[in-house]
Amino acid sequence: MTTSPLTPGGRIGIVGGGQLGRMLAQAASALGFCVHIFSPDEHPPAADVATHHVRADYSDQNALRDFARNLDRITYEFENIPVETVRFLETLKPVAPSAAALEVAQDRLIEKTFIKNLGIAVAPFIQVDTRADLEAGLKTLGGIGILKTRRFGYDGKGQWRINSDDNFDAVLTALNGQAAILEGLIDFSAEVSVIIARAEDGTTLCYDVAENTHENHILRLSRVPANLSDDMRATAAQIAHKIATALDYVGILAIELFVTQQGLLVNEIAPRVHNSGHWTMDACVTSQFTQHMRALAGWPLGSVERHSDVAMTNILGEEINDWRSFASDPACCLHLYGKAEARAGRKMGHVNRLMPRSDG
Amino acid sequence: MTTSPLTPGGRIGIVGGGQLGRMLAQAASALGFCVHIFSPDEHPPAADVATHHVRADYSDQNALRDFARNLDRITYEFENIPVETVRFLETLKPVAPSAAALEVAQDRLIEKTFIKNLGIAVAPFIQVDTRADLEAGLKTLGGIGILKTRRFGYDGKGQWRINSDDNFDAVLTALNGQAAILEGLIDFSAEVSVIIARAEDGTTLCYDVAENTHENHILRLSRVPANLSDDMRATAAQIAHKIATALDYVGILAIELFVTQQGLLVNEIAPRVHNSGHWTMDACVTSQFTQHMRALAGWPLGSVERHSDVAMTNILGEEINDWRSFASDPACCLHLYGKAEARAGRKMGHVNRLMPRSDG
Repeated sequence: MTTSPLTPGGRIGIVGGGQLGRMLAQAASALGFCVHIFSPDEHPPAADVATHHVRADYSDQNALRDFARNLDRITYEFENIPVETVRFLETLKPVAPSAAALEVAQDRLIEKTFIKNLGIAVAPFIQVDTRADLEAGLKTLGGIGILKTRRFGYDGKGQWRINSDDNFDAVLTALNGQAAILEGLIDFSAEVSVIIARAEDGTTLCYDVAENTHENHILRLSRVPANLSDDMRATAAQIAHKIATALDYVGILAIELFVTQQGLLVNEIAPRVHNSGHWTMDACVTSQFTQHMRALAGWPLGSVERHSDVAMTNILGEEINDWRSFASDPACCLHLYGKAEARAGRKMGHVNRLMPRSDG
Repeated sequence: MTTSPLTPGGRIGIVGGGQLGRMLAQAASALGFCVHIFSPDEHPPAADVATHHVRADYSDQNALRDFARNLDRITYEFENIPVETVRFLETLKPVAPSAAALEVAQDRLIEKTFIKNLGIAVAPFIQVDTRADLEAGLKTLGGIGILKTRRFGYDGKGQWRINSDDNFDAVLTALNGQAAILEGLIDFSAEVSVIIARAEDGTTLCYDVAENTHENHILRLSRVPANLSDDMRATAAQIAHKIATALDYVGILAIELFVTQQGLLVNEIAPRVHNSGHWTMDACVTSQFTQHMRALAGWPLGSVERHSDVAMTNILGEEINDWRSFASDPACCLHLYGKAEARAGRKMGHVNRLMPRSDG
């Protein structure tokens, strides 16, 4: 991207129409931009808060061309969009993050290899294309590991804890021939994440590290500040900076890490705004959504200063039916995504609870 | 309004499509509501962030009926909508604030009489329907005063400083036969405002008092906390509570006051979210826009706690062309309204600058 900063009134396209697209659209509007959504869904949550919705498949090049024609900049809200879609859009208009960055983040094998080659610690991993790969891998890892599809996994989907004695065949059946990697089990004391923003000029800014609690592989709670030493905080930020810079990244990048006795290990990265950064909406001068739009627009980054301590809790599935209790808690900053159907585990909204800063 | 609380996914109508409607729509969406805008304009700023826009005149009852049919609750974003429009909508769906409250706020004579009758101090005022009224009024007030149209004034429009010796005839010509009031000059040391929220059940909550600076009758700057004694703060909140309760008000009500040696005088009230409350967007747990939507939805009010000191500065007219400087200030929370044309004095956006709390 080598264009001049986007003027207010400029038109931004977001590929994908879920809650992340919705909150990106809201942030873009607050900066005076006009937002178009591209999504195959009939009523994507993001379309309700945008000027225009193009409904078509991600592979529909005619529709993508029409979409891009009316836009100045394009971004995307989740990493399971085909890389080809993003690469095609790049031939038409400035896009961030790049297709090249997406390609790395979209495939666990490429991602982990990339990070490892930067000299950053990751869980041990082994490429699994065949039954023999899996057998050999399990032997190397002491008979136990986590088998993960290389692509399209999220919220624990497409991953299985596998034990050579117990459930080898059942997991292999579930995998159903998909390319996979086998990861060693990690003995971690906490899960944390860093949200980093990188501007067009290469400037980076890290938000404070969040400490995350998952339930059934789905994020439940992010707390800031994390219970982490200053050294570990600094290391997390250095890791994020190294990865974002190596990807020549523009926008918000999320890095999930394990805290272990041997130090921090990168679990995975997400080339987008991230659930574990939703706390920034109410506790920071600049939210991750606004920040992503600033980077996309070629603007300087905003302050990542945090004015409050915060706990972000996801509202999942039928918990949305408890909206009266969230609405009745005056200290809740409530964010609901306007989704009609409350399927089990589906992210329906979140609440941020602010507290006075306990540190710095 | 006697309905049960509005469920997320509920449909809210906003009459008027300017920046206040836009920010109300954004707040409503964040609570999971679906927003429809009613505005005669072709491209109202609010329509870009709403699901639906009905374009028709405020007097078009068929269009109003169609608009209301698809909605659960209705509000409005400015006080110069015809009372008849709001009264008509009240026959169709729950509306807040009420037409009765609007009627009081819309006419300076009714408004000032109402407030005075509550035992609250206002500037001396005299009804002016004729030249003779004006002559007599000026005599009473010592030969000088501010002549204001009773209706449709804003940002200094429809008001003139009048002096019986200097410009009597010129002002009378400018008034052009409109019903008016003559107000005595007030010797004030500061202008402040209180934003109060009142829920359906009569609960009220006041935001911290803001200290306002006007230029050419247009708000330039609001600072919080105001430089005001604790007694005056408490009095301002009591005044706001008294007025909101007497109006049986639901939603956000703004009270502008003068600080004088004799104490606080009410200048005017606005039956809506208010420019001098924009600081709440970034410095409070609940913004005035979210709060208005909570009240409209029949929800309990959110916390009005302020976590930071704040200075809100309006971006007026061609100042929007300086967007690069606002965008480059990392500490600015920037809010732009997506207006295409930058007419002189037009409100194009605002910035909130946060600072650590100096009090409390």
